Amino acid sequence: MSKEITSRQEDYAQWYNDLVIRGGLADYSAVRGCMVIKPYGFALWEQMRDTLDRMFKDTGHENAYFPLFIPKSFLSREAAHVEGFAKECAVVTHYRLKNDPDGNGIIVDPEARLEEELIVRPTSETIIWNTYKTWIQSYRDLPLLINQWANVVRWEMRTRLFLRTTEFLWQEGHTAHAEAGEAIEEARLMLNVYADFVENYMALPVIKGVKTASERFAGAIDTYCIEALMQDGKALQAGTSHFLGQNFAKAFDVKFSDRQNKLDYVWATSWGVSTRLVGALVMAHGDDEGLILPPKIAPVQVVIVPIYKGEEKKEVLDTRCREITASLKAAGIRVKYDHSDNNRPGWKFAEYEKRGVPLRIAIGLRDLENKTVELARRDTRQKKSIPEEGLTEHILSLLTEIQSSMYQKALSFRDAHITRADHWEEFEKLLDEKGGFISAHWDGTAETEEVIKEKLKATIRCIPLNNPPEEGKCIYSGKPSRERVLFARAY
Amino acid sequence: MSKEITSRQEDYAQWYNDLVIRGGLADYSAVRGCMVIKPYGFALWEQMRDTLDRMFKDTGHENAYFPLFIPKSFLSREAAHVEGFAKECAVVTHYRLKNDPDGNGIIVDPEARLEEELIVRPTSETIIWNTYKTWIQSYRDLPLLINQWANVVRWEMRTRLFLRTTEFLWQEGHTAHAEAGEAIEEARLMLNVYADFVENYMALPVIKGVKTASERFAGAIDTYCIEALMQDGKALQAGTSHFLGQNFAKAFDVKFSDRQNKLDYVWATSWGVSTRLVGALVMAHGDDEGLILPPKIAPVQVVIVPIYKGEEKKEVLDTRCREITASLKAAGIRVKYDHSDNNRPGWKFAEYEKRGVPLRIAIGLRDLENKTVELARRDTRQKKSIPEEGLTEHILSLLTEIQSSMYQKALSFRDAHITRADHWEEFEKLLDEKGGFISAHWDGTAETEEVIKEKLKATIRCIPLNNPPEEGKCIYSGKPSRERVLFARAY
Repeated sequence: MSKEITSRQEDYAQWYNDLVIRGGLADYSAVRGCMVIKPYGFALWEQMRDTLDRMFKDTGHENAYFPLFIPKSFLSREAAHVEGFAKECAVVTHYRLKNDPDGNGIIVDPEARLEEELIVRPTSETIIWNTYKTWIQSYRDLPLLINQWANVVRWEMRTRLFLRTTEFLWQEGHTAHAEAGEAIEEARLMLNVYADFVENYMALPVIKGVKTASERFAGAIDTYCIEALMQDGKALQAGTSHFLGQNFAKAFDVKFSDRQNKLDYVWATSWGVSTRLVGALVMAHGDDEGLILPPKIAPVQVVIVPIYKGEEKKEVLDTRCREITASLKAAGIRVKYDHSDNNRPGWKFAEYEKRGVPLRIAIGLRDLENKTVELARRDTRQKKSIPEEGLTEHILSLLTEIQSSMYQKALSFRDAHITRADHWEEFEKLLDEKGGFISAHWDGTAETEEVIKEKLKATIRCIPLNNPPEEGKCIYSGKPSRERVLFARAY
Repeated sequence: MSKEITSRQEDYAQWYNDLVIRGGLADYSAVRGCMVIKPYGFALWEQMRDTLDRMFKDTGHENAYFPLFIPKSFLSREAAHVEGFAKECAVVTHYRLKNDPDGNGIIVDPEARLEEELIVRPTSETIIWNTYKTWIQSYRDLPLLINQWANVVRWEMRTRLFLRTTEFLWQEGHTAHAEAGEAIEEARLMLNVYADFVENYMALPVIKGVKTASERFAGAIDTYCIEALMQDGKALQAGTSHFLGQNFAKAFDVKFSDRQNKLDYVWATSWGVSTRLVGALVMAHGDDEGLILPPKIAPVQVVIVPIYKGEEKKEVLDTRCREITASLKAAGIRVKYDHSDNNRPGWKFAEYEKRGVPLRIAIGLRDLENKTVELARRDTRQKKSIPEEGLTEHILSLLTEIQSSMYQKALSFRDAHITRADHWEEFEKLLDEKGGFISAHWDGTAETEEVIKEKLKATIRCIPLNNPPEEGKCIYSGKPSRERVLFARAY
């Protein structure tokens, strides 16, 4: 029945696409590289967004909104930033259309050319720091702790639903501080917030680390990141938090007078996660039957399906289902009672499995008699009959158990896929055959990184925080190294 | 102290701008016609957005997200729509920048020209109906009740913060139905949701009506609207809800098979409100000291300001303020305790008046002794000393009273500004001297509307719903008319 879904073994990439589309999360659109986020996918994103938003506010951040467009000249102000970002962008050159004088529909009005082209924001550091210049004068205006939820556009040649789309939704935090140390603390605090969210809500273990110079955000002094592992052994960067030093403050001339009335440039951070996280969620937990969503962020935590034949006791069953729905709702559980007549129970079972609803309750006529319900877990696919009495408490504790068991499963898989390698052949073989993170020595040069990337398509995902020092030799060059780093092929 | 704010009498337009900027809601940006929504303004928008979002969900709607870009050819599909919308848009023509070979920063790469230009959405009917084509096959897929929160861009020549900006935030509902009657019902339902929100949350009375053909949304069969009145006597369209008939279904070939398996085009509605509502809120309620926000959507409902001299009893006072803050929070009140040492109480008083915080609590040393607090209402500027005992209940009931009293005040003003006119000179004089809505007869022709608009800058705001029939003669042409309509100058 669920064979609309390709198996992971058969074609992992196709399996992923099937899950996203058949699971009701998103669809391709008529615009190259852009997707449509469908209601169920958007409800999932809302759960994620609202949870993160609360965590941001709990750590003292406020939301604001900055323009979609960035004047072209702004991008050139910070030298490293323009190198990293300015290239693949959507460029607005005109502001008017007109009727084609030859009668062929509408054309761009050549007379409505902008004096300076506008870039659809690929990220907002430049427009935001240009604004901060007017907001910050004194240490009293600091720290400035601001976040923005927005859409951004990066013109990608090869796109994949959620993982890499031309337009995507994200949040970007942009903070300003009086001292370097405070900014570094902020960047690390937000990395911890991200790790907390991904591990405790998305049930996905992450490795916290710092990027090498070549993998840093364009314009950053340090890029902190969290890296997660997908079921095919490829890594996925789930969030980044940047210490930007005074680079943007210098580029946009943002100075403040300190307590001694001395002028200095402001210190900055920026940090972001995006709808890419939805892709990570799909890839990390799904199986060949469909999505598996962790209870804490599942838009629907429990679905109730009545099972009846003809009209016999249909009303009694309906009443019972509504009572259960009401009591679960009262306990704060997100429950859906699917009483539609359009589809048979078997179809519904498969549908909610595809959609990854954590728990399914089925109630038939015999259940009515026995005062029981059939409870099915999506993650383990275990079914059992349980008494109606105490159902709400049972479900609450099951949801907690599912959340933790999904995390444990992902953690075991991840831990089993961090492998040490000390020789090139071993390294190559591990990448090709086992995948996952390879912990290996690296000589610290960008040249070596580049060669490894070219030869094996593997990159240094991060230098883990609190990495133990260890003398060794670079896996590629044999030159001395003082710590291992984590390599992987990645999304 | 608050003389950063121009008085309404002196310069109404400048007063409005001062309120928006000094009240901390928004600021101009470096991008022509685009604003920056500041944290306090965004917090206000969040209150409005979250309330509306709940109302949409309570009426069965789900959120989704569609692409920012619309292929140029899509706009031409619906003939009336392109006439109304296609002209003043941001047009993306290229997708890459490159380093200028002459070393002058970055330039648009002429080789990265799009085959078909993309329009930054001015509204999303076209891209959404192009998507609905793949979502709708049968009556079982209907109704489709979808809303989107998004940014849109309309290239405006003359912009004003919140009221008319090139980019703005809004929500757009797009629904699909099997029957015309059901779609009309939906359009009216959402009009009522808007009216409920604006009246009961924004404390602003509205007139529900339908637009004349010339004022209709481009592509609609009927445009329902709510119209509010500002303090300068000008009207402001606060929300619209459109019955689109089968126009977009035909343009994008969206058919469904009904219960009899007969194919028919789908019936549609769309409806939207935007950050423009923030402008309406400012204009309708503010005074010469600043904003006045209705409690139900004020980001901060109560501010607590401690008043001390030097260090005397500062700690005791601080403890007391924290206790009050905690008990108000526990009662669900949005409270801010401003204990900052940077500014004196007088400065804080003026600041929170500018920001329109509904209630201020001041506590000084004498209050500590007497177990009282000083309570000041923002709307009436009344102050009184009240006992600490029962403070929370007192505040809860005061907040309710303020909400209702703000509405009543706006209602009296609005009702006093609906005036009947039966002669042209009277009509002209009322518009110039009194303002507000003029209830007058109209001959039903677009020509008369056009002449009146040109001569007097007044438009027909709406034909009120449930308008009583009345025989009369057109205020301009003298031709026969069967009902009065509401004219006004408008934002």
